[in-house]
Amino acid sequence: MPIPTREWQLVRRPQGEPVPEDFRLVDTERPDPGPGEVAVRTIALSVDPYMRGRMSAARSYAPSWELDATMEGATVGQVVASRSPDVPEGTLVLHGLGWRDVAVLPATSVRPVEPLPGLPLSLYLGVLGMPGLTAWAGLFRVASFTAGETVFVSGAAGAVGSLVGQFARLRGAARVVGSAGTPEKVRWLTGDLGFDAAFDYHDGPVRELLAAAAPEGIDVFFDNVGGEHLEAAVSAFREHGRAALCGAISAYNATEPPPGPRNLTQLVGKRVRLEGFLVGDHADLRPDFLATVPGWLREGSVQARETVHDGLDSAVDAFLDMLLRGGNTGKAVVRLAPDPD
Amino acid sequence: MPIPTREWQLVRRPQGEPVPEDFRLVDTERPDPGPGEVAVRTIALSVDPYMRGRMSAARSYAPSWELDATMEGATVGQVVASRSPDVPEGTLVLHGLGWRDVAVLPATSVRPVEPLPGLPLSLYLGVLGMPGLTAWAGLFRVASFTAGETVFVSGAAGAVGSLVGQFARLRGAARVVGSAGTPEKVRWLTGDLGFDAAFDYHDGPVRELLAAAAPEGIDVFFDNVGGEHLEAAVSAFREHGRAALCGAISAYNATEPPPGPRNLTQLVGKRVRLEGFLVGDHADLRPDFLATVPGWLREGSVQARETVHDGLDSAVDAFLDMLLRGGNTGKAVVRLAPDPD
Repeated sequence: MPIPTREWQLVRRPQGEPVPEDFRLVDTERPDPGPGEVAVRTIALSVDPYMRGRMSAARSYAPSWELDATMEGATVGQVVASRSPDVPEGTLVLHGLGWRDVAVLPATSVRPVEPLPGLPLSLYLGVLGMPGLTAWAGLFRVASFTAGETVFVSGAAGAVGSLVGQFARLRGAARVVGSAGTPEKVRWLTGDLGFDAAFDYHDGPVRELLAAAAPEGIDVFFDNVGGEHLEAAVSAFREHGRAALCGAISAYNATEPPPGPRNLTQLVGKRVRLEGFLVGDHADLRPDFLATVPGWLREGSVQARETVHDGLDSAVDAFLDMLLRGGNTGKAVVRLAPDPD
Repeated sequence: MPIPTREWQLVRRPQGEPVPEDFRLVDTERPDPGPGEVAVRTIALSVDPYMRGRMSAARSYAPSWELDATMEGATVGQVVASRSPDVPEGTLVLHGLGWRDVAVLPATSVRPVEPLPGLPLSLYLGVLGMPGLTAWAGLFRVASFTAGETVFVSGAAGAVGSLVGQFARLRGAARVVGSAGTPEKVRWLTGDLGFDAAFDYHDGPVRELLAAAAPEGIDVFFDNVGGEHLEAAVSAFREHGRAALCGAISAYNATEPPPGPRNLTQLVGKRVRLEGFLVGDHADLRPDFLATVPGWLREGSVQARETVHDGLDSAVDAFLDMLLRGGNTGKAVVRLAPDPD
């Protein structure tokens, strides 16, 4: 008997900033699972900056979403029907077909996860999921961070940035500096997350704000923002500085190419490395990551704040609020159902 | 008895492009060597782009030259007086006190070199010296070049660039592409050095010229020029591309910061690495380098062309011609005396 479900579809490729009219919520149904398949009811789904890229037709690292098709993304849910002995009904799983009430997919495409006593399952979309591994891989592998160094994180109150700063602190950073877009976020970074300094990038030229927050310069830059932040970091770098370029949310909705950093000649004399990365290339780090971060979470060394929107209806609002207005502090998630007991 | 010598001094820090009036040729004398010292008569001296940086007061990787003091630089010469048993009179040596007829310095500050049968000693200033090791370290270590990849070199007819392209070809590049500033240089690259393609960057937007010369994209970029070349390379990069940033001659005389590349957001999705380097950090590669390159030279696999200026009087002209007008093809050197028999 087919399973009724509601799903978000992309109906139009956004020009510049996405608007609600680019999306459509449809009532439809999914067939019962076939042999080897499972049906998964969504508990919480993820909205992430990278999804903006999937809405464009332009070649990107992830394939473009098709128009009039249901969108995708990380989701945690519970198996409600199964024709796979490996993943029985009731199993909690992570999968990649978000933006819908119910997904039907091969059991081999889901990853069973353990309940998190006292913590929400949605953490599998953030600190214990792709954003967490992104922070881990970017900081420790791509940027080759080592104890005693000074780290600057742009977009530091976001899902990834807030973890980068905490990971750096826990692994012995000399100084952790972050930028964010509101005074409240800045206070959260220094007051709750243990950043040594933070600034609101609206308060002046980023170069000056960074120079004041890291007067002796920086060794590592973890960039989620791009543009002016990258130029400021290049100027602030000490010799042998490294940047892990994770994203450039400042440019995602630009219709004209943004101005580039005018100071790249400094890269030579200071022997600085800028390196872009995608978390998908670093799945081999997952065992290390999972051997460490859940313990930090349990002991309270890492805070994994979420900005939670309620119900599938709110998913596009949640996405736009995160992408356009920086409305999230920590990870933006959409919760469709409470965690099972 | 003091040794008469003529020496070039910096009398004024250049604003923008250096001019002859920024320099002065003085008649003076150097004392006889003291204990442990040698006097070396210059055979040939090097003029290099990086010297522009030493003329500025601004903090740079190499200390600024002092005003009214004799300039420095790589030089090959012969010991004409010695108070060191380790470096007797007649020894051929390389040292760092160029821009003069005679240098007097500790024997520990010179490096004895072997004659090069059939080849000029000035090659120790180019293919067998700092420019050669720069090409080697940048290509093989910093840019992690491996066989089967496509390499783009900017300033490919210069001392370093012309070696990068040849080294890449000898180590199995799928395709070697270079840019240069005159049609003659372009013909030299493809006709004599074995580049697969080359273009004159005056012929149009570098991005278009590069796309035509490397239609399937590039894996490695060795940059001597900066600016528009870097932006073009970023666009041309395939996934996991790497740039070794060696210099930015296009910006050395700029009085305003040059526009930056507007496409750096591509670094993320393509997982591209840009890394500045200085050859001084890679001296540990010298044994590998010297185990290979002299053989390539002897067997004729590498061409080490020089643009030779005659006499100490011509040294500033040689420098300006190289820096401002790209007057050199291959290594620019100033010859003060013939090689000893």
